[in-house]
Amino acid sequence: MSQPFADWMGSVQARTETALSRFLPPAESIPGRLHQAMRYSTLGGGKRVRPLLAFAAGELTGAAPEALDAAACAVECIHVYSLVHDDMPCMDDDVLRRGRPTCHVEHDEPTALLVGDSLQSLAFDILCRNKEIDHGRQLEMVRVLARASGSCGMAGGQAIDLASVGKPLTQPELELMHALKTGALIRAAVLLGALCGPAMAESERDLLDRFAKRAGLLFQVVDDILDCTASTATLGKTAGKDAAADKPTYVSLLGLEGAQRFASELEAEALQCLAPFGIRSQRLTELAAFIAHRKF
Amino acid sequence: MSQPFADWMGSVQARTETALSRFLPPAESIPGRLHQAMRYSTLGGGKRVRPLLAFAAGELTGAAPEALDAAACAVECIHVYSLVHDDMPCMDDDVLRRGRPTCHVEHDEPTALLVGDSLQSLAFDILCRNKEIDHGRQLEMVRVLARASGSCGMAGGQAIDLASVGKPLTQPELELMHALKTGALIRAAVLLGALCGPAMAESERDLLDRFAKRAGLLFQVVDDILDCTASTATLGKTAGKDAAADKPTYVSLLGLEGAQRFASELEAEALQCLAPFGIRSQRLTELAAFIAHRKF
Repeated sequence: MSQPFADWMGSVQARTETALSRFLPPAESIPGRLHQAMRYSTLGGGKRVRPLLAFAAGELTGAAPEALDAAACAVECIHVYSLVHDDMPCMDDDVLRRGRPTCHVEHDEPTALLVGDSLQSLAFDILCRNKEIDHGRQLEMVRVLARASGSCGMAGGQAIDLASVGKPLTQPELELMHALKTGALIRAAVLLGALCGPAMAESERDLLDRFAKRAGLLFQVVDDILDCTASTATLGKTAGKDAAADKPTYVSLLGLEGAQRFASELEAEALQCLAPFGIRSQRLTELAAFIAHRKF
Repeated sequence: MSQPFADWMGSVQARTETALSRFLPPAESIPGRLHQAMRYSTLGGGKRVRPLLAFAAGELTGAAPEALDAAACAVECIHVYSLVHDDMPCMDDDVLRRGRPTCHVEHDEPTALLVGDSLQSLAFDILCRNKEIDHGRQLEMVRVLARASGSCGMAGGQAIDLASVGKPLTQPELELMHALKTGALIRAAVLLGALCGPAMAESERDLLDRFAKRAGLLFQVVDDILDCTASTATLGKTAGKDAAADKPTYVSLLGLEGAQRFASELEAEALQCLAPFGIRSQRLTELAAFIAHRKF
């Protein structure tokens, strides 16, 4: 009998924390101030949704946990860098993240800029240290992560988001924005986790990719719902700020009930993609439900 | 008889411009504003010192020009991202670069942040598309570039630079700062270029690495000299700003004559490292002289 989901999740989160601490430069190594700020922003918090997805996808392909550490930490470094840069005054100008002062508030703006830049480099460095995986596969992982992060992925979604403030978007436009801004990295987490195991059949890879796209969109729709229904204390980040900033969200587009209905549809579609994998997809199935029904 | 140096330099610069234009996303592809800003910052200017070093090192190992395009453009993307971020108001707050308005002036701050972030991702993406090179070698190139860019390389040097304003540094401290801030990426340009060719003997690689370190330091010392002797019009960027910002430079540490003497010593040492390679190192030798005696 397998471990209950909550225990599995706790163990992956703890494992990720340990691995991140090992991959990050020591706090006392030169330049100390930068390394301390990198550790402050990366360690000790976060739901670790992307590492969980990488580990869950790795269970599906039978990947070794040691290989998954690198995949999970690389994706998380990209995610944390994006949070640090997004919180800066010239972007969202936010002061609270994971229940603590944001990086530029705790340190200063130039340090926050360099923390983000350095975490991005570290992500690719980590992917090159994955001795469990053959070179061709490692290189594929670098390519997947680089594309998911760049101007046709996460950073591109940010750019569309910036351009869309105060402008009504259609649902296809909103979906494109989120497919890039949040979805691309969620998808990369699933693909990188799967790539740590033996090669999958083309058809299996397609199914997993379809799951990953649905899961990414689901994550964002639920984020939009929580942004207007949960409190700042529960979220550990400023609540209601999308509405305050007049940003288009699924709630502003579909209404609260419409967004909740859309989330349920996405969850059902995501689970359908996993059904053919049977028991191998247990953790991904549980994780999709967790993403759909999380309260923070 | 080989091409005169000026012609070789011009042809590598033109080749790099073409390759960068090909690697960058088209200006009209979504998100257009971000892609236009990436192209604005990357194309149409710059001495292309790092691409020149990559091509010159590639001549030494007999690398194919097609492979060198990727190495040269990846390093240049990292360099341009660092310029875009360094020019931002929270860093150096500069308005002029390569004779044109800086990215955040021409566009806006959030766009400049995303341009830098996206160019970093693009650099690693480019290294994965280098079909001329086997997977193990490509992965080594990703690792070299990631380390040279991150908190123990270029970004780390920036952090030391920030912390050192208005604080007297000793020559070893100043050298560490520059070894990271400028030297790490110059060295990466040389190593990446060499890695595009057949494997070198350990002893040759050591010599080339010693050359690369001297060349990186030489580049910075000459930069410091030019910052206080050349005009803004000649440099295409704001002259005299290091002194104005009370930043430690080789000129403030050694005086103008002392800095010029140090530059000559570094040039001689760099050339010594190349001597054993004979005619194979012709372009690197010419390039070291160019770096030492450039006027802009």
